Amino acid sequence: MPSSGLRRYTPRFLHDSLRRTWTDHSCYVQQALNVNVPGGKLNRGLSCPDTGLALLEKPLTEEQFKHLSILGWLTELLQAFFLVSDDIMDSSITRRGQPCWYRQEGVGLIAINDAFLLESSIYVILKKHFRSHPAYADFIDLFHETTWQTELGQLCDLITAPEDKVDLNNFSMEKYMFIVTYKTAYYSFYLPVALALLYLQRATPSNLRQAHDILIPLGQYFQVQDDYLDAYGDPEVIGKIGTDIKDNKCSWLVNQALQRCNAEQRKVLDEAYGRKDDALEAKVKALYKELDLEKVYQEYEEKIVGELKEKIAAVDESGGLKKEVFNAFLGKIYKRSK
Amino acid sequence: MPSSGLRRYTPRFLHDSLRRTWTDHSCYVQQALNVNVPGGKLNRGLSCPDTGLALLEKPLTEEQFKHLSILGWLTELLQAFFLVSDDIMDSSITRRGQPCWYRQEGVGLIAINDAFLLESSIYVILKKHFRSHPAYADFIDLFHETTWQTELGQLCDLITAPEDKVDLNNFSMEKYMFIVTYKTAYYSFYLPVALALLYLQRATPSNLRQAHDILIPLGQYFQVQDDYLDAYGDPEVIGKIGTDIKDNKCSWLVNQALQRCNAEQRKVLDEAYGRKDDALEAKVKALYKELDLEKVYQEYEEKIVGELKEKIAAVDESGGLKKEVFNAFLGKIYKRSK
Repeated sequence: MPSSGLRRYTPRFLHDSLRRTWTDHSCYVQQALNVNVPGGKLNRGLSCPDTGLALLEKPLTEEQFKHLSILGWLTELLQAFFLVSDDIMDSSITRRGQPCWYRQEGVGLIAINDAFLLESSIYVILKKHFRSHPAYADFIDLFHETTWQTELGQLCDLITAPEDKVDLNNFSMEKYMFIVTYKTAYYSFYLPVALALLYLQRATPSNLRQAHDILIPLGQYFQVQDDYLDAYGDPEVIGKIGTDIKDNKCSWLVNQALQRCNAEQRKVLDEAYGRKDDALEAKVKALYKELDLEKVYQEYEEKIVGELKEKIAAVDESGGLKKEVFNAFLGKIYKRSK
Repeated sequence: MPSSGLRRYTPRFLHDSLRRTWTDHSCYVQQALNVNVPGGKLNRGLSCPDTGLALLEKPLTEEQFKHLSILGWLTELLQAFFLVSDDIMDSSITRRGQPCWYRQEGVGLIAINDAFLLESSIYVILKKHFRSHPAYADFIDLFHETTWQTELGQLCDLITAPEDKVDLNNFSMEKYMFIVTYKTAYYSFYLPVALALLYLQRATPSNLRQAHDILIPLGQYFQVQDDYLDAYGDPEVIGKIGTDIKDNKCSWLVNQALQRCNAEQRKVLDEAYGRKDDALEAKVKALYKELDLEKVYQEYEEKIVGELKEKIAAVDESGGLKKEVFNAFLGKIYKRSK
């Protein structure tokens, strides 16, 4: 089973690929890899072998499994690069229950360069294992394109919602969808599937377009759900206490509230959103209740899931793409509570 | 003349390559490019068309000139990516006579993501103009390899000489040469020449190796000279006041001093190096004089230049490499005063 086997190709494998002649700081680089690459849920990494399995409809050979696992780890490396640097830019305190990397002993702003090294190691490993694969240049182009998209999404997010200057006029549903699509959907949903398609040489323009047109809305839905759970989820179940309201996040909920509020309610939002204050946060949550955003979300969910199911049903499998790739994603996401 | 013409393909050209559908933040990206990419001496950028000219021994066609200028700007983009992030990591105040980018109005730590965008735009532009060039994958591999080397050099520098913890036991001539080679020589000297060789399809393994074996020591010599001028150059001529001693830099001079000092002199170094204090800085400079590092430098310069001249004279031109490529570099560097 790919899902349980990804860890067979763990970061040790990365170290071996990365080891260099000069060893004095290889220790430091290993530590940066060990702390920042494993330890998450590995959803993105697992999507590569899982997609391969769904495409082939039979067990992967040992070599296919190894290669798709490496590609999976590369998506996790890309994510580690984003998380290490996002945490610095957001002045975050903890990540996965540990102090953020830049806050660990002896690291500090060296973490910026460590983020670069995490990114660069993608291409070192790609070259080592896939230089002779016919899609080598396409793998690289895809990683670059995805990185660029994510950075544009991050820029828009940083400009739209600075933590220290609250101005809800900056927000809009259009900007929200741009941020969500560019900052999250491309690298989390499209990238691992496109990598598996490239690896198995099924990345025809039609297959890539079909995958894109399902996975991008799926990624948007995933993020909307994330924003919903931040306020409405059970902290015991999701494992963290939501802070989007206090952190002035350009969230789906606040954009829905902005579209539905009257002048008086807008005044409450302007005064209470983005403040580090429990009472003001409670006021915003009360307003969400008043506007019945829970129902708005449920209607959104049913609508988008209906559309996604239609699109999946219409997938043209004649070029080697499989509906099961997308059904597997949707099954994991629909009505999740964490 | 390439040297005067590089600016014909200015950042406007980059903007056109980078412009995207979503325009709200394209303004911000343009500003980040305008402030950080031009404005330097363009030595690295100019080396691409200059090398092309020396290789062909006749005027470049308009297309060759355009392409080599673009490749030159890509090396300047890579440098901008390093400078923007180095300035954050070093807490620098000014760059090229202006406040560092991260210290400009409305930027702050967003500058980290801006550095990423500068790096990513290399590959956007490379794809736009060179996707069908036979060396496309080699261009990309070369940029990745060079980026990785520079980041390893930067890591070693950051670990060896933290500004806030002075410990001269961390320094050694071996580490110095590693830092200089990886952090500076590869991207400043080898990269632009290798790009021109790849572009003109003269990048045989032998030509690349010969270029490497001359340009890396040349880059080391350039940086040693830089360190020498930091203490011995005329601030009026070099356009800045040297701060290596106060900044606890792992400089060639302090490493020479460490190799030559007696126990008493070592005590002076331990107490005075890396302190933000004019009197202590003067003590270190007096010690440099006592140890006659000026003469040590002059002997080093004559020796290394002699070796470089010998290597250049021995270049095998039968595969399309030209001695003139290297003589041009050496001519610009030898006995420079700024």
